[in-house]
Amino acid sequence: MSAPYSPVAYRRGVLTILDQTCLPGEVRLVELTTLEQVEEAVRSLRVRGAPLIGVAAAYGVCLAMGAATNKAEAYVRGMEAVERLRRTRPTAVNLFWALDRMSLSLQHIQKEDWFVVAEADARAIHGETLRQDAALVEQGLPLLAAGARVITHCNTGPLATGGLGTALGVLIGAHGRLGGLHVYADETRPRWQGAHLTTWELAQHGVPHTLICDNMAAVLMRQGGIHSVWVGADRIAANGDTANKIGTYGLAVAARHHGVPFYVVAPTSTLDLKLDSGAGIPIEERDPREVAAPEGHVIAPAGTAAWNPAFDVTPGPLISAIVTEKGVFRGPDYRLREGTG
Amino acid sequence: MSAPYSPVAYRRGVLTILDQTCLPGEVRLVELTTLEQVEEAVRSLRVRGAPLIGVAAAYGVCLAMGAATNKAEAYVRGMEAVERLRRTRPTAVNLFWALDRMSLSLQHIQKEDWFVVAEADARAIHGETLRQDAALVEQGLPLLAAGARVITHCNTGPLATGGLGTALGVLIGAHGRLGGLHVYADETRPRWQGAHLTTWELAQHGVPHTLICDNMAAVLMRQGGIHSVWVGADRIAANGDTANKIGTYGLAVAARHHGVPFYVVAPTSTLDLKLDSGAGIPIEERDPREVAAPEGHVIAPAGTAAWNPAFDVTPGPLISAIVTEKGVFRGPDYRLREGTG
Repeated sequence: MSAPYSPVAYRRGVLTILDQTCLPGEVRLVELTTLEQVEEAVRSLRVRGAPLIGVAAAYGVCLAMGAATNKAEAYVRGMEAVERLRRTRPTAVNLFWALDRMSLSLQHIQKEDWFVVAEADARAIHGETLRQDAALVEQGLPLLAAGARVITHCNTGPLATGGLGTALGVLIGAHGRLGGLHVYADETRPRWQGAHLTTWELAQHGVPHTLICDNMAAVLMRQGGIHSVWVGADRIAANGDTANKIGTYGLAVAARHHGVPFYVVAPTSTLDLKLDSGAGIPIEERDPREVAAPEGHVIAPAGTAAWNPAFDVTPGPLISAIVTEKGVFRGPDYRLREGTG
Repeated sequence: MSAPYSPVAYRRGVLTILDQTCLPGEVRLVELTTLEQVEEAVRSLRVRGAPLIGVAAAYGVCLAMGAATNKAEAYVRGMEAVERLRRTRPTAVNLFWALDRMSLSLQHIQKEDWFVVAEADARAIHGETLRQDAALVEQGLPLLAAGARVITHCNTGPLATGGLGTALGVLIGAHGRLGGLHVYADETRPRWQGAHLTTWELAQHGVPHTLICDNMAAVLMRQGGIHSVWVGADRIAANGDTANKIGTYGLAVAARHHGVPFYVVAPTSTLDLKLDSGAGIPIEERDPREVAAPEGHVIAPAGTAAWNPAFDVTPGPLISAIVTEKGVFRGPDYRLREGTG
């Protein structure tokens, strides 16, 4: 069941990433050895997916510390890395969760073993992601059925987490365990993560699938036969409001209109229980050229203004259930609390 | 108010088209002199927009007849052209409306003036489009307000009709007469008519606008301030069910969810009153490469299956009003009849 590829791999002082901006054309492995390279990789989406950027950031702190020659310097470099990595992307809370953990780890480093401890903590974050993903599959599986036709948005497979994936992990697991699944993959404009990454992952795992434009999902639901919709999350507030890739909200509205169950799959590190609702979630706005000239292919007249929010917020009541590694929480009213979810 | 460009212009034996597949990069005029060239131009979307393909087809019949040396041969060539042009695109009914008129015209050609009459009838179809579009603006204007922020899908401006346009014609007219309009243009995957053509037309007419991906429209409505949504139509059944560019249906569902008025603008030549409902409208499925490799830019792994319906059907009850040149018909229950609509 594990993925035949890994989006990140760490050995002392070197973080090897699968450059996701090169997929599906090329499986390019890139070795990152400095904090600056990790920052660039996260900003430019070479490494992406809410859980995975948390993992990559933890290793990024280690790379920064590796340049130090003593504990005091390592502490300063580590804390600087935590602060700089916080500024790479604003929406996915897993990044802050991982950096908070590395920051806590830095408070407790001992004189001789500082690097060993930091690396161990980063590996622990990575390992937790792997275990959480496996638990997500078990939690999500009962919501599916053999032969289900499902829709998914963006990419939430192994590439997005460093483990088995979240929503797509459940679908890949269901293919193996229940059989007969057919996945409709939204292309996911503007960055095409669905077309580039989800179709590639589904092919790697032998899951039958069809690529659609985002604007085809509603009529697909209308024509019937769609069992459910599966998406990941970048941040979930205590009331279940969920920030996820732009387009998720429209998909949830269409699912509700057609009575199709809409499932969010995310580890509990995606919960931000300090926030009562999604109104407090900062939404990253990216370069409008991603809309007007995707991957350099100019589609609009020079000077055309474009809007490019990277995420939107889906209100909790539109979500049928939130699947976490600790359990499945059912809507429409969510009261997610520390420990329970 | 008239457009500073024309998508088709006819003079004896030559149909000059503005090749819409070259926009927005280049305003390329192409001279068509044969039936085969017109067929190719319609199929490949060099000439597109439901009303305009009707106009182009009428002139296409004239081009076919122009190769004849006598009335009998002209009749045969004309009828053959009618049948061949019917097979170019299946969904927009304006094409069949125009070809039916040309066919009727052919039944009545006289011995000497056959070419004059055919050309006059084609010009009459074109002229009617111009007058209908002007009437559409007058009918639609009362539904707008100064300063309105609106969303539109695909392209329904002068490029789509050869006149002032349908939905976009109303918006351009409202900009001139009411002022302060801001138009959000859906990019309209897979062929990007919104990004390529609508933004270009809005710029030509000086209307403030912003390009968005199709999957951003729902959250734009949620954030508030969207006055209404405006689209054209390729075929409207007697109960108001409306076939239009893929993505229209999802937009209508989102508009309903947010209580945003959803307007369809089309000349009565778009009505197909033989059809009780949209269930009978044939939906063109185009090459899946338009989805997986838009304009040659490959976005998915080789061999990825893709679905590419060119249109979807929006049920009448989701449409707030259908604006025709003869009047505004209000939903949710439409009973469109000959003469009234």
